[in-house]
Amino acid sequence: MQDKLHEECGVFGIYDNGDDLDVVTSTYLALYALQHRGQESCGIAVNDDGVIRGYKDLGLVTDVFKPQVLESLGTGKMAVGHCLYGTAESNRRENAQPMTIRHVKGQMAIASNGSILNALELREKLELQGAIFHSTSAAELLAHMITRERLTAHSIEEAICQAMDKLYGVYSMIVMSPKKLIGVRDPLGLRPLSIGQCGNSYVLASETTALDSMGAHFVRDVRPGEIVIIDENGLRSIDKHCGKKSHLCVFEFVYFARPDSVIEGTSVHMARQKMGAFLAQEHPVEADLVMGVPDSGNDAALGYANESGIPYGIGLIKNKYIGRTFILNTQRQRENAVRIKLNAIAEVVRGKRIVLVDDSIVRGTTSARIVRLLREAGVKEVHMRISSPPFRYPCYFGTDIDSPERLIANKMTVEEIGQKIGVDSLGFLSLENIVKVAEKSDCAFCTGCFSGEYPLCVDDAGRVSKFDLKFSEQID
Amino acid sequence: MQDKLHEECGVFGIYDNGDDLDVVTSTYLALYALQHRGQESCGIAVNDDGVIRGYKDLGLVTDVFKPQVLESLGTGKMAVGHCLYGTAESNRRENAQPMTIRHVKGQMAIASNGSILNALELREKLELQGAIFHSTSAAELLAHMITRERLTAHSIEEAICQAMDKLYGVYSMIVMSPKKLIGVRDPLGLRPLSIGQCGNSYVLASETTALDSMGAHFVRDVRPGEIVIIDENGLRSIDKHCGKKSHLCVFEFVYFARPDSVIEGTSVHMARQKMGAFLAQEHPVEADLVMGVPDSGNDAALGYANESGIPYGIGLIKNKYIGRTFILNTQRQRENAVRIKLNAIAEVVRGKRIVLVDDSIVRGTTSARIVRLLREAGVKEVHMRISSPPFRYPCYFGTDIDSPERLIANKMTVEEIGQKIGVDSLGFLSLENIVKVAEKSDCAFCTGCFSGEYPLCVDDAGRVSKFDLKFSEQID
Amino acid sequence: MQDKLHEECGVFGIYDNGDDLDVVTSTYLALYALQHRGQESCGIAVNDDGVIRGYKDLGLVTDVFKPQVLESLGTGKMAVGHCLYGTAESNRRENAQPMTIRHVKGQMAIASNGSILNALELREKLELQGAIFHSTSAAELLAHMITRERLTAHSIEEAICQAMDKLYGVYSMIVMSPKKLIGVRDPLGLRPLSIGQCGNSYVLASETTALDSMGAHFVRDVRPGEIVIIDENGLRSIDKHCGKKSHLCVFEFVYFARPDSVIEGTSVHMARQKMGAFLAQEHPVEADLVMGVPDSGNDAALGYANESGIPYGIGLIKNKYIGRTFILNTQRQRENAVRIKLNAIAEVVRGKRIVLVDDSIVRGTTSARIVRLLREAGVKEVHMRISSPPFRYPCYFGTDIDSPERLIANKMTVEEIGQKIGVDSLGFLSLENIVKVAEKSDCAFCTGCFSGEYPLCVDDAGRVSKFDLKFSEQID
Amino acid sequence: MQDKLHEECGVFGIYDNGDDLDVVTSTYLALYALQHRGQESCGIAVNDDGVIRGYKDLGLVTDVFKPQVLESLGTGKMAVGHCLYGTAESNRRENAQPMTIRHVKGQMAIASNGSILNALELREKLELQGAIFHSTSAAELLAHMITRERLTAHSIEEAICQAMDKLYGVYSMIVMSPKKLIGVRDPLGLRPLSIGQCGNSYVLASETTALDSMGAHFVRDVRPGEIVIIDENGLRSIDKHCGKKSHLCVFEFVYFARPDSVIEGTSVHMARQKMGAFLAQEHPVEADLVMGVPDSGNDAALGYANESGIPYGIGLIKNKYIGRTFILNTQRQRENAVRIKLNAIAEVVRGKRIVLVDDSIVRGTTSARIVRLLREAGVKEVHMRISSPPFRYPCYFGTDIDSPERLIANKMTVEEIGQKIGVDSLGFLSLENIVKVAEKSDCAFCTGCFSGEYPLCVDDAGRVSKFDLKFSEQID
Repeated sequence: MQDKLHEECGVFGIYDNGDDLDVVTSTYLALYALQHRGQESCGIAVNDDGVIRGYKDLGLVTDVFKPQVLESLGTGKMAVGHCLYGTAESNRRENAQPMTIRHVKGQMAIASNGSILNALELREKLELQGAIFHSTSAAELLAHMITRERLTAHSIEEAICQAMDKLYGVYSMIVMSPKKLIGVRDPLGLRPLSIGQCGNSYVLASETTALDSMGAHFVRDVRPGEIVIIDENGLRSIDKHCGKKSHLCVFEFVYFARPDSVIEGTSVHMARQKMGAFLAQEHPVEADLVMGVPDSGNDAALGYANESGIPYGIGLIKNKYIGRTFILNTQRQRENAVRIKLNAIAEVVRGKRIVLVDDSIVRGTTSARIVRLLREAGVKEVHMRISSPPFRYPCYFGTDIDSPERLIANKMTVEEIGQKIGVDSLGFLSLENIVKVAEKSDCAFCTGCFSGEYPLCVDDAGRVSKFDLKFSEQID
Repeated sequence: MQDKLHEECGVFGIYDNGDDLDVVTSTYLALYALQHRGQESCGIAVNDDGVIRGYKDLGLVTDVFKPQVLESLGTGKMAVGHCLYGTAESNRRENAQPMTIRHVKGQMAIASNGSILNALELREKLELQGAIFHSTSAAELLAHMITRERLTAHSIEEAICQAMDKLYGVYSMIVMSPKKLIGVRDPLGLRPLSIGQCGNSYVLASETTALDSMGAHFVRDVRPGEIVIIDENGLRSIDKHCGKKSHLCVFEFVYFARPDSVIEGTSVHMARQKMGAFLAQEHPVEADLVMGVPDSGNDAALGYANESGIPYGIGLIKNKYIGRTFILNTQRQRENAVRIKLNAIAEVVRGKRIVLVDDSIVRGTTSARIVRLLREAGVKEVHMRISSPPFRYPCYFGTDIDSPERLIANKMTVEEIGQKIGVDSLGFLSLENIVKVAEKSDCAFCTGCFSGEYPLCVDDAGRVSKFDLKFSEQID
Repeated sequence: MQDKLHEECGVFGIYDNGDDLDVVTSTYLALYALQHRGQESCGIAVNDDGVIRGYKDLGLVTDVFKPQVLESLGTGKMAVGHCLYGTAESNRRENAQPMTIRHVKGQMAIASNGSILNALELREKLELQGAIFHSTSAAELLAHMITRERLTAHSIEEAICQAMDKLYGVYSMIVMSPKKLIGVRDPLGLRPLSIGQCGNSYVLASETTALDSMGAHFVRDVRPGEIVIIDENGLRSIDKHCGKKSHLCVFEFVYFARPDSVIEGTSVHMARQKMGAFLAQEHPVEADLVMGVPDSGNDAALGYANESGIPYGIGLIKNKYIGRTFILNTQRQRENAVRIKLNAIAEVVRGKRIVLVDDSIVRGTTSARIVRLLREAGVKEVHMRISSPPFRYPCYFGTDIDSPERLIANKMTVEEIGQKIGVDSLGFLSLENIVKVAEKSDCAFCTGCFSGEYPLCVDDAGRVSKFDLKFSEQID
Repeated sequence: MQDKLHEECGVFGIYDNGDDLDVVTSTYLALYALQHRGQESCGIAVNDDGVIRGYKDLGLVTDVFKPQVLESLGTGKMAVGHCLYGTAESNRRENAQPMTIRHVKGQMAIASNGSILNALELREKLELQGAIFHSTSAAELLAHMITRERLTAHSIEEAICQAMDKLYGVYSMIVMSPKKLIGVRDPLGLRPLSIGQCGNSYVLASETTALDSMGAHFVRDVRPGEIVIIDENGLRSIDKHCGKKSHLCVFEFVYFARPDSVIEGTSVHMARQKMGAFLAQEHPVEADLVMGVPDSGNDAALGYANESGIPYGIGLIKNKYIGRTFILNTQRQRENAVRIKLNAIAEVVRGKRIVLVDDSIVRGTTSARIVRLLREAGVKEVHMRISSPPFRYPCYFGTDIDSPERLIANKMTVEEIGQKIGVDSLGFLSLENIVKVAEKSDCAFCTGCFSGEYPLCVDDAGRVSKFDLKFSEQID
C-alpha cells in the first residue's frame, strides 16, 4: 500500500568505557529512534567480556524486545543493534541482523546496510572454497570476507581493511569483536554513519537522532572509507580507503533520514526547508495555502511557504497509530485505503487554491488518492510540488526500487503525471538545485535515481560487470 | 510517563441498510480512527440477524483484531465498536466494551463513555433487588438500567428513555438491540456523538473522523438528550430529554478530539488555530519563531504565528512509532525519558527566542523536560504559551483527573509554574476567550476543570450528593 | 476425532486456615490433576481478605497459567479453581469459570459442573425480573439464584440452601464468599465432590486425586444434598437437602474419573478391575492375550486377565504428547487418524487371539480403526469386551451426549455393532453387574445412558416438563 | 526435576516418488511420533523442486507447527524433520535443526543426532581455513564437512562418504540435496535409523514408530556405516564405511525408544519384557504384586510378573497432560514434586509386598520420592528392580550425562543406593543379561554407561585424544 522508496536498515553500536551506560537499554532506545529506517526485523547483540549473546526476530523494536527478552540479554560493555527493511522474500528470521558468528579468533557480531555490488562474485568465490551460507544477508557475506582476511591479518581492523579491498559497493557497517567496536563507511560514503560520545564512551549510529535518544553528543561523521576503531584506548581510525569525496545518497535528505538528524554537517530539516524554498523559486504559483503531505512533506512545505509568502497550513491529518495489518475486503475500501492513514480538514482546504508539497512520487497511486481526498473536501485548485526531481532510474544501493518498472516518472512526462494524479499543476525540484541543499557540507551526492548517473559502475541488474572490480580502478 | 489528561473512550455504531457495507471492517477502521480516545482495550460486537457475537480484549485495535479474529466475527447488518482508556485498576478484560448481554427480550450490546455520577446509588439500588455485576464498567450499569425499564417499556428506545430519567451524568452511548441501533447523548451533551450516512445506511461515532475513515458523510451531531433510533425504516429520534443547551467538554477542542474532526459545527483544527490567535493577543512577546509541542500543540502554534506575524517553525520531532513498553533502568534514562518521544532540531532553535505552544499543563513534568531539551539545543529564550486556561480543578466527567492532587496549577501561580518548568515567560489562554473558539456552534461549554464551576451537581468525590438526583431538578 | 463421552468440568476450592498453604499454587496443581475433566478452559479466583481477583481463559491449565499470570493473582486465604469441557459453541471466554461477581453483600466466586434441568425456566423468571446474563454458563445462573436469596437470607449458606429449593438438576458447586468457602452437591449426588484436609485447612475437589496432588488427605465425600461451610471455625454443614441416596453417575467409574481417585469409598481403579472380572464371567472366550485400549481400558483388561487366566499384555502404545491441532489434509491421513494417537506392537499381537478391552463404545468409529490397526499388525482374532453396557440413551446431566443421534448402540444390535467394527466377537458388561462394582459404597447409580431410566424427570430435550419442579415432588 | 537420561534428537526424511504423499504433513506426524526423542526444539525443511524452505523454533512439535506455519511451508517432493533435546545452554533457536544452508552446488538441509568426538579438532581446522559458525550444533559442522568435500567430489553422496573418513563419532544423519535424500548411520551404528516404504516412496526415521505414524511399512535398518541414497531411481547405497558390527546404544532398548518401535529386528517392548524376565531370574523375591513406574517401567514389570508368577498390577498413575512449567514455591511443594506427575493407588498397594520395576536410576531422587509415595499409601514392602545395570559411567555419545557427577551409582554401592532411596531390596539387571535382550538381532551393544568400556576411543572430556583420529585405526 505504501508508495514510498524504502531505506534498507539502520545500524547502531556502543562501547561503554567506564561510564556505566547500560548498553542494552541504550541500543534499544537507539533502535527505537532509528525504527523509520527498517520495520521488518531487528536485533541486538551484547558483548559480555568476549561472549556475545544476541536476540533478533521479525517485528518492530517494541514488539521484539519485550521486557523479558531485554532482560535475557544481560549486560556487557558493548552492544550492536540493527533494524532492517527487507522485501517480502528476504523477510525471514535468518536474515535479521546483527549476524553473530564464531570464527577462529572468537565471536563477532556484524550489522550493516547498503548493497555489495559484487556480492554474487564474492559469494561464488567463497563457495568455491567451501563456504556455506545460512542466509541471503549481505552481513553474512561480510562476515565471511572479514573472517578470511582475519586468518592472515594482525587484527580485526586490519582484516576489515583488507576485506574492503575486495568489496565493491555501498555500505555502512558496525563490527563487534571480543574487544573492539569498529565502524566502517564505504569509500564513497553513500550511506551515513555518525560518531557520538558520552563521557569516555563512544557510540556509532546511522543517524544522529539515535545519539540524541541516549543523550550522547555528536562528534563527527565517519568519513568515506574510514575505519573507526573503538576500544579501551578510545577511538582511532584507519584511513587507507579514504580519499574520495563523499557521494551521499541525496534521498537521505529528501526522505529517508529523520528531520532531527544532522548528516554531513547539515540538518535534514533545514535541507528540506531549503528544498521547499528552491521549489517556490522554480515553480511559483498563485495560491491561498501551502501544506505538506504529512509527515515527510511538512518541512519542505514550510520552506515553500516562507519563500513564497503564501501562508502555511495544516490540512491533512495522519493517523498516529501505525498498524501493520489492514484487511481491505471490498473494492470500496481498497479505494479508500488512503483514508485510513490520512484525512483532510475540509474547513482548512474548502474553496482554497492549495500548494501541496510532497517529497517524491514513486508510483503515483498515493498522490492520486490524496488529491482526490482534497477534491472531495472541496479544494479549488491543487498545485503539487515535489521536493526532489522526477524519480526515473532504479537505485542499486540498498533500497527497494531496483527496477524502473514501478516508477511513474520513467514512463511519463511531468505533464502526463500531473494529469494522471489529477492536479492543476505539478512541479519537481530541479537536479541542479537539489544538490545545493547542504551547502555547509563538503559532500557530493549520489543522484542516480534522478539522473541515471551512478558513482559506481553498475549494470542493469545492479551488479558490477567485471569480476572482482576494484574501487581504485573504477571511480573517477 | 505521559503528562496528559486522558479521555475515556470512543464509541461507534453502524447499521447497514442494504448498502453492503461490511460492517465489521468498517467498525475496525472506525476504531482505528478513534484510537486516540482510548488505547487500553477495544471491542467489536456484530449483530447477525439478531444474534450478537463479540470480541474484545486489552490492547490496541490493530493488536486485538488480527485477521483471524476479524474473520471469526463473521458478518451482519449492524455492529458496535468501542475503544477504552482506563486507569490501571480498571484495565481488566471484563471491563472492555461493548458489553454484550442477554435479557428477556434477546441480546443487547452497549458501548458508552463518560461518567454516571449517581452510579453508586443506582448500583446499590439494583443490588438490593438482586442484581449482580461482573465488572466495574458503567456500560454494565447502563445495561441493567435499560433492561429493567425494558420489562415495562414497549420498545428498547422507550426503555432507554425511561432509564435516562434516572441517570445523572455525562455519557454518549450506543445500544444495539436485535433490530435497532440506538445512539444517545446525555441531556447536557458533554461528550460528542455524530451521525453519518452512507447510502441508506447510518453510522454513529464519537468523532467525525471515524465517519471519514469509512467514507460516510457527516449528517449532524446527536443533540443533547436526543435518542436516535436507526432501523430498517431509517432514522428517527426521541426528544424527551432534549431542551438543554449543549455543555460540551471544552477539552475536546483543546486536546481530546482529532484535529480533522468537526464537533458542534466547528472544526477542531480551526478552533485550535483560534486558540493560538487569542493567545497571541493575550500574551504577545517578541520572538523569532513560534512552534508547537507536537502533535497537539501544532495547530494553536500556527494560529499564534499567523496572528503575531512571528514565523512558524518545526523545531521538535516526535517519534512516530508509538511503543508502549519502555524499560528505563537508570536514573539518567528516566531523566531522558522525554527524549524517547521528542527530539529538538538544534539548527532550528539555536540562538532563537522561541514561542512554544502546548495545549495544556497537567503536572508540568513533561513541560519542564521539553524546555530543558530546547535549552540544551541552544535556544535563547523560551516563551511558553498554553492554549487553555490553567487546569486547576478535577474533572468528574469521564477523564482520569478526578482529584486536584496531580494538578500543578492547583498548587502554584502561573509565575511559579513558569519558574518550575524553566521558561522565560508563560501565558495561559483566558477562560473568557476559550469559550469563543467555536463561534459557529450554538453550544455552551463545560469548563469545570478551569473554573471549578460544573454544569452538574457534584461533590468532591465526583458524585451527586442526593440520592437519585434528577436532571430536571438540578440544571439551571 | 475423539469418540468418547465427555465430562463437563472439575471444581476445586481451598481454605487456608493458618497452614500457610499457598492457595494459588495448590489450586493450580489441583486443576492440573483434574485436567482430564475439562480441557477447553480453566480459571482460578483468589480471595485476598474479601477482595476476589480472578483469571480465566480458553486453554489447558499449563497454557493459561504461565508463571507471570500465576504471580499476578497474588496471594490469599482462599481460592477456587475450575476446568471446563464445553461444546464448540460454548467454548467462549465468557463461559469460563469461576464466575466472579459482585452483589450487594460483596464479591462471590462460583465454580460448578453438572446440569440444571430447569435452567431455562429459572432464567426466564429472572429475566422477567430484569436480570441480565453475560454468558450461557450455569454458574452465572447459580450466581443469580444465590444472590436473589441472599437479599433475604441471613447468610450466604442460607441463601444457597434456599436457592437449592428451586434448582432441579445435577450439580457440584463451590462458592467462595468474602469469608467462607462453601461446597454443595445436588440432592442425588450425581456428580462427585470430596473433602480433604491439610493441617487445619480444608479443600474441596471433584476427585480425590486433586487432594493427593497437594498433599491433603481425604476426609469424606460431600453427601448428596449437603452444604459444607468452611470458615475460620472449621467445617460444618447444612443437611436440609440431604436424605436421598446418592445416585452417582456410573460413568465416573467407567471412564470419567482418574483411576487413582476414590469415589463414595470405592477406588476407581478397583471398580474398573472388577468390571473386567465381571466381563470375563459374562463373556468368556478362548484367547492368547488380554489387552486394554490405553489408557482407559487397561484397568478392566487387567481384571479380565486375572479372572480369566489369560495373560495380560501391552499391545497398543499411546502417544503421550497430547496435541490439540492436527491437520489431516488427505483422505489417507484421515483414515490413519487413529495412528497418530495409537500404534500396535506387531510383535505382541501377531498371530494371537486377542481380548481387547475398552470402556465404552459411543459412535464406534475409533473402535473400528483400532481393530483395523490390530488386523494390519497380524492379529488372528479380536474379541472386543466393553466394560459398560451398550450406550443407548442420551445423558442430560452434564455431558456432551444429549441426543441419541450419534450413539451406535441406539441404532444397532450388539451383533451389528460387532460386524460394523470388524471384531470376531463383542461383549458388553451387563447393567446388572455394572452397579455392583462399588460394593463397599452405599450408593445407588444413575444408569440412564444404559437403561433410559433417569433418576430425575426429564423430557427429550433434557429439561423438566413442569415449570419450577421441586425435587421433593419428583423423586421416588 | 526429571531424573532421566535424555536422548539427543530424532531425525526423519521423506522422498515422495509419485505417491502424492503430502511430505510436510507426513513429516509433521512423524516428528509428533518421535517427540519423545527431543522436546526442546523442532523443525521441518521442505524441498520444492530444488528450493528448500524451512521453519524451526524452540518448543514442542504441536506448538511450533501451528496450521498457518505448516501452510507457509508449502509443498514439495522431499522433506526433512528433526526434534531436538538440548541442554539449557544449547537451547537456542540457532541450534534448532534441520540446518538449511546454501553452498556452491545449491541448497542442502541436514538433520543429525549423536556426537562427533573430534568435533573441536574438525571445527578448529575449518576455522583455520576461514569457516564461520552460526551455532554450536553438530549439524552445522557436518554441513561444513560435506560442503568442503563436495568441492572435489562428483556427487553429494561421494562428498558425504569422504567426509565420513574424517568424522570420528556417533551419528545418524539425513541430508537433503536439491535432488536426493540421503541417510547415514555411523560405522558403529550406535544410534538407530530405519528405512520405510510407502508405494514407490521411501522414508527414513530414527524409529519405526514414525513409519507407522504415516502408514509406511518397515523395510530394514540402515546398516552401520551405510550411506543410503534415495532419488527418482529409487534407493541405493554406498558400503564403503560398512563392515563393523553394529554397536547399538543399549539404552535405546532400556529407555529411549518407544516400545512400539523395532530396532535391529527386535521389538523394543519385547526386549523390555525380556529384561523383566531376566530380572526375575536374577533377583527373585517373595511379593504380592509387580508394578512398573509408568510409563517406562511397565513393559519390564510385565516381563517380571510373567516370569515370576507374581501378579502384575497397576499401582501408580501418571498425569497425562505433560506440562512444562511448574512453579514450586514452597519447600513442601518441592518435596511433593513427584506427586504432580505420579500418584499411587492406595487400594492397590496397601498392605502389599510390591516389586517395583523401573528402567534405570540416574540421580536416585525421583526413585526415593516414588518409594515415599508408596509408603504413604500403605505399602508393606518395596522391592525395587531396575531393568538395566547400575549407571556408573558417563555417556559421550549424544546424551546429556557427560560427567559422572550426577550418577548415584558412581558413588554408592547397590546396597547404599537401596538405603538411600528407602527400599527393602534393590536389584539391577546384570550386564551379562542386558546384552541378550535382542537375541534375534545380530548386533553388539554399546554398554559404556554401565561398563566404562566404550566402542570408541574417548578421553574424560568426551573427546578423542589424537587429532583427526580415523575410525579404521581405532576400533577393534
